[in-house]
Amino acid sequence: MPYVHLRVAGTLSQDQKAQIAEEITDTLSRVANKSKSYTYITFEEVPHDNWAIGGALLAKKD
Amino acid sequence: MPYVHLRVAGTLSQDQKAQIAEEITDTLSRVANKSKSYTYITFEEVPHDNWAIGGALLAKKD
Amino acid sequence: MPYVHLRVAGTLSQDQKAQIAEEITDTLSRVANKSKSYTYITFEEVPHDNWAIGGALLAKKD
Amino acid sequence: MPYVHLRVAGTLSQDQKAQIAEEITDTLSRVANKSKSYTYITFEEVPHDNWAIGGALLAKKD
Amino acid sequence: MPYVHLRVAGTLSQDQKAQIAEEITDTLSRVANKSKSYTYITFEEVPHDNWAIGGALLAKKD
Amino acid sequence: MPYVHLRVAGTLSQDQKAQIAEEITDTLSRVANKSKSYTYITFEEVPHDNWAIGGALLAKKD
Repeated sequence: MPYVHLRVAGTLSQDQKAQIAEEITDTLSRVANKSKSYTYITFEEVPHDNWAIGGALLAKKD
Repeated sequence: MPYVHLRVAGTLSQDQKAQIAEEITDTLSRVANKSKSYTYITFEEVPHDNWAIGGALLAKKD
Repeated sequence: MPYVHLRVAGTLSQDQKAQIAEEITDTLSRVANKSKSYTYITFEEVPHDNWAIGGALLAKKD
Repeated sequence: MPYVHLRVAGTLSQDQKAQIAEEITDTLSRVANKSKSYTYITFEEVPHDNWAIGGALLAKKD
Repeated sequence: MPYVHLRVAGTLSQDQKAQIAEEITDTLSRVANKSKSYTYITFEEVPHDNWAIGGALLAKKD
Repeated sequence: MPYVHLRVAGTLSQDQKAQIAEEITDTLSRVANKSKSYTYITFEEVPHDNWAIGGALLAKKD
């Protein structure tokens, strides 16, 4: 019953999301014996002006 | 002081969100004696290509 | 495919959590036609000194 | 290694987000000795019809 | 700048968490070109009476 | 109506949490005109073996 939420700065292609979901689901199944059919993964693509590191927005770092 | 976050795959109508919020708030008040005026509920409508189950994006399952 | 996360200040009894989970799942099924078997609900019971409102920890308000 | 997630109802300007991120990062550094370069802050701007308080959507309160 | 949060029902050993973190970080680096040193992963081990599926707590399903 | 969730690796003292909550609430009020009485802040203190960076658990880095 794992639930995984990924936040990334910027966007991912649908192919990247598909492969990431497949690999993480495989990892959880293989390493921790978690049923694949019960594994949920959600992606949240965060715009660069909504993510800060070191006290500055990524959008302002360019 | 409950805080409830709902992620759903796809979208909900405003009427559905209004009724869900009303019912969950009522449940928390009646079952756990939580003050309705302190109950926050947020909805996050996740696109089908941002949600995976069983290692595959919902968008790819069609 | 709904995923619901509830944060409450303090604790809930197992009976309260069971009834809240049953009612929220029923609400999502009835109002938004979400499959009950795909509805995940997780509870997070937050200690009073880890929750602030109005700039003050709940634990300090006693 | 702090990770801070802010949900606000409605939107913020980029200047507001930049200043909030700078001040929160400064607070965590000064009060808790957290390294600024390891502090992540993400903003999520929630539409008024996705946020309920007291059982009613903000969008319906107008 | 990925941030990954995993909720699992029950517990994981430290070795399982270490391997899962290593593999997910590798996946994000290889598939999406995300810098490993900027990838944060947090685990939340949820007790069985704090996780419901199909309207029933896992703890009550035994 | 801001809702802020802070995850930190390790623990904070009650005094640190109280001061952080007060300062963040003040920041949101001053910069974004958010009502202090509607600002919720929750802390989650994450054990070092539940937080990874660069693919390794913090607990393993000692």
